[in-house]
Amino acid sequence: MSALPISLSHNPSDPVFLAHEGGKLGVHATSPLRDAADLSLLYTPGVADVSRAIALDPSLASVYTSRSNTVAVVSDGTAVLGLGAIGPLAAMPVMEGKAVLFKHFGAVDAVPVCMETGSVDEIVEAVARIAPTYGGINLEDISAPRCFEIERRLQERLDIPVFHDDQHGTAIVVLAALLNAAGVVDKALEDLTVVVSGAGAAGVAVSLILLSAGVGDVVVVDSTGVLGPDRADLAPHKARLAELTNARGVTGTIGDALEGADAFVGVSGGTVSERDLMRMAPRAVIFALANPDPEVHPTVAARFAEVVATGRSDFPNQINNVLAFPGVFRGALDSGARAITEEMKLAAAHAIAALVPEPTAGEIVPSVFDERVAPAVAAAVSALASRR
Amino acid sequence: MSALPISLSHNPSDPVFLAHEGGKLGVHATSPLRDAADLSLLYTPGVADVSRAIALDPSLASVYTSRSNTVAVVSDGTAVLGLGAIGPLAAMPVMEGKAVLFKHFGAVDAVPVCMETGSVDEIVEAVARIAPTYGGINLEDISAPRCFEIERRLQERLDIPVFHDDQHGTAIVVLAALLNAAGVVDKALEDLTVVVSGAGAAGVAVSLILLSAGVGDVVVVDSTGVLGPDRADLAPHKARLAELTNARGVTGTIGDALEGADAFVGVSGGTVSERDLMRMAPRAVIFALANPDPEVHPTVAARFAEVVATGRSDFPNQINNVLAFPGVFRGALDSGARAITEEMKLAAAHAIAALVPEPTAGEIVPSVFDERVAPAVAAAVSALASRR
Repeated sequence: MSALPISLSHNPSDPVFLAHEGGKLGVHATSPLRDAADLSLLYTPGVADVSRAIALDPSLASVYTSRSNTVAVVSDGTAVLGLGAIGPLAAMPVMEGKAVLFKHFGAVDAVPVCMETGSVDEIVEAVARIAPTYGGINLEDISAPRCFEIERRLQERLDIPVFHDDQHGTAIVVLAALLNAAGVVDKALEDLTVVVSGAGAAGVAVSLILLSAGVGDVVVVDSTGVLGPDRADLAPHKARLAELTNARGVTGTIGDALEGADAFVGVSGGTVSERDLMRMAPRAVIFALANPDPEVHPTVAARFAEVVATGRSDFPNQINNVLAFPGVFRGALDSGARAITEEMKLAAAHAIAALVPEPTAGEIVPSVFDERVAPAVAAAVSALASRR
Repeated sequence: MSALPISLSHNPSDPVFLAHEGGKLGVHATSPLRDAADLSLLYTPGVADVSRAIALDPSLASVYTSRSNTVAVVSDGTAVLGLGAIGPLAAMPVMEGKAVLFKHFGAVDAVPVCMETGSVDEIVEAVARIAPTYGGINLEDISAPRCFEIERRLQERLDIPVFHDDQHGTAIVVLAALLNAAGVVDKALEDLTVVVSGAGAAGVAVSLILLSAGVGDVVVVDSTGVLGPDRADLAPHKARLAELTNARGVTGTIGDALEGADAFVGVSGGTVSERDLMRMAPRAVIFALANPDPEVHPTVAARFAEVVATGRSDFPNQINNVLAFPGVFRGALDSGARAITEEMKLAAAHAIAALVPEPTAGEIVPSVFDERVAPAVAAAVSALASRR
């Protein structure tokens, strides 16, 4: 997974390390503190009036505290980038980076919460206990299958949005990209056969959103092969996925799954061979989203597909979660949504896709720096929240 | 305890509520995010190098993450100001205010963590689990006697400073003020008889630091009377305090304790009568620190004492924790201290006192806006950390 040899891993004069010195986040007061009068407004005795008012009417916490605009980026460091279970301290730079993106693109105040890992019970308990501080919880880089139960139980327990970005952020942007890619290759979404490589957090959520969006045929492949009824070895989340997908009952390897397939979506961190890709249908679509090393190099992929996308900024069609999560939480916070629903995720994907009205093979999604994206996503999410 | 009738508690056009709209804290990136090159430094792929380096050498988290300058202000909302157990949401404005003070006076990035209350075990578990995110833990407004065990167990378990400000911040500033007040009334610290009114978090810590500093005679009074061997009703933390204090074996009421006493330190939230105060020794000292309503009005207190102090900004001699905690954590973070030791607290008190080289009855402590305070406290704390 590593792009750099371990021996080069700490180089204090490298621009990356220089940019991280002292961390990437700061906290500031939003009101001036100039004198004793300001102090008596922002702290004692004035603050007591605000605390008393919230004690009497807890809904005022959304008006008078920072939870109105603050999201916790929570990780236990068990599945960080492609690096695996590197622990909470090593996860910090990633969560801080995520917080930087939240602020830059969504004007959301996000704070990292990196925790010692533990049982699902322990993680759920800890997150639920600190939840009053925040207006939303973004779960990040928590290993599968623990991530599914942790998210579900927190969603059941809390009245604020709980959103595992590795699942749903990825699902939203993949669907957005596929909506436009289907247009480029002139195929209807319902007619597509899509092979999803990877049955972890991203693979599960991508498969489910594609089915929700109306994709006709989704086949999921893990490192052992195609998920289907013949697989006796499946963990519960994969067994459920096997039931929901693979309507044609495909068996075998990824090559078997790709026979005549219209689209390949790689969220595995593995690789896919040219021999397998050449079995795809004409006018194929390849999303090789593993980071930093795509499942197939985009110039190779282009020999087998009309539309090629990766997660990288140095190739065309960068499919990156940053197109989704800042706007999703912006919309949820603005509307007071208690959850991010399936309908909101579909609407977010359509909102992103709609920002490229005439997609081409070289442009199926907007740039991550396109300032229209987060407001469009926020509006789509917010509209569904206020209709409840 | 309340300065305002409940019926007036939510007035959206009041300056206090206006100052709290949207909360008082924001998060910002400390490095610019302008383009794809910045993105690749602050997030993927660059961030992976920093995460990998920290995974190999966890001490680098102090260099390359925000934990190097971030303190969690942790409360379960069980003893907030004089308002009592108002819960985590209502505690938020106080913790945000504390964070504003941390930044303004100590250049410390502090974030509130308001949690649902629970057993001591549950609070300890939750704080310990999220601790990797922070460079220090400031416990705040947690009810006694739970606060003592929570602090002790977290200190044993974590390798970052854990500091219950209601205890130790108060203790530091009271000692600082008493050092200078003793000079004003021309009495030696060792010769003082000090009556501490209140045996909660502040009362315990104030009594202990006065003993550490060499005060000869400390007598503690709770709402029932003087703490001493005759009290069969005492909770463990009060029984321990009774053993450590009251060397003369005083029994009875606060009036009995004040007979001939040189100083009264009120941290009770209650009141003290003129009839009791008139029993104090000549050239007495009265610190009536309950907020917002002092145990005795300072103009009344002045009839019985040469030096009078309160916690309020609208009277002379404001004894406020803000003189201590920003500098204490600034020093701890700068020096990489793993704990705030007794010696550091004593040194912090002496550093604050030394900023008023010629104390008078009207000036025994520096102003809370005196910009020299936090650096002086930080230097005192830091010097002891680096000597370990």
